[in-house]
Amino acid sequence: MHQALFSFIENYMPLSINEKDAIIALNIFKSVKKNEILLHEGEYTKNSFFVLKGCLRCFYVVDGNEKTTAFYTELEGLTPPSVASQTASQFYIAAVEDSIISTSTSDMEEQVMAQFPKFEKLCRLLSEDLLIKQQIDFNEFKLSSPEQRYQNLLNKRPDLIQRVPQHQLASYLGITPQSLSRLRGRITTKSN
Amino acid sequence: MHQALFSFIENYMPLSINEKDAIIALNIFKSVKKNEILLHEGEYTKNSFFVLKGCLRCFYVVDGNEKTTAFYTELEGLTPPSVASQTASQFYIAAVEDSIISTSTSDMEEQVMAQFPKFEKLCRLLSEDLLIKQQIDFNEFKLSSPEQRYQNLLNKRPDLIQRVPQHQLASYLGITPQSLSRLRGRITTKSN
Repeated sequence: MHQALFSFIENYMPLSINEKDAIIALNIFKSVKKNEILLHEGEYTKNSFFVLKGCLRCFYVVDGNEKTTAFYTELEGLTPPSVASQTASQFYIAAVEDSIISTSTSDMEEQVMAQFPKFEKLCRLLSEDLLIKQQIDFNEFKLSSPEQRYQNLLNKRPDLIQRVPQHQLASYLGITPQSLSRLRGRITTKSN
Repeated sequence: MHQALFSFIENYMPLSINEKDAIIALNIFKSVKKNEILLHEGEYTKNSFFVLKGCLRCFYVVDGNEKTTAFYTELEGLTPPSVASQTASQFYIAAVEDSIISTSTSDMEEQVMAQFPKFEKLCRLLSEDLLIKQQIDFNEFKLSSPEQRYQNLLNKRPDLIQRVPQHQLASYLGITPQSLSRLRGRITTKSN
């Protein structure tokens, strides 16, 4: 699993043996089981999560119903906003599949940056990239009908549609499972 | 206007006289008139924008209609996603009011970071902050009805409601101007 992380980082900058060793020494990898909850609503955390293998899901519970807001798969990461504000989390994070993830805290990141200043640059580039991706997703979400959102997902993250239970996918798209089912029917009919 | 920018930066880290001089030397401030277009759909840009005073708006044109996706007011900044991908912009940026903005390019930022490495940290912290704010906004948007979105705006950015034309605000909330007008009516009635 280290190799997957190193390859990801090396998209941004080369890593020396010492730098790789420093990452390995952090001992950040963790296996989580399908449906395991990594963060509960109301819980305090200092952790950022990064998916090496598998799929994580963020969801809120509103009036007793789950509202899924995000999925994170291979080489995607998230820091809950409650980490920075040091407040209770407003949402849950759960594993959709058996997964291997890395967890890190800002203290650990600061430590590595103090030892290897170029990680500062890495973190900046990663944040900038995530910011851009999120901005594109947000704009697309605002501009799209549920049908267009589903089409975007088919184009950009087709694997997700296979991996994620339909009711979670419907919630993520902001529609009912019945509407999703009708929508899939229409799209299949069109493409035949 | 420099002082406003310095105060903003000094929320993250202190600035020396030399560092302030380096920023002044970049000559990044610019006045723009109300309704002036800073970026057109289809245009290539290397610029990031930061609002010192005034208000900028991002909008797409879909089937001949403007769809507003974001407003940026004092001490908020944006880098269009097309800067990183070096592609044509998919949206417009226009001034809602007479504004004073700073524009910078990643080349300029790299130059300043080479001279003053601590700006690397500043840029990382800024990106991380923006990422969190955007994530909160995105989650709220997904979880909210148009009425709740308007209420959120009333709580978090009440100035915007006064400053921005109603049809742009309605478009930003994802509703028609008529719906916005009814919604305002309902909220006013409730609060009386």
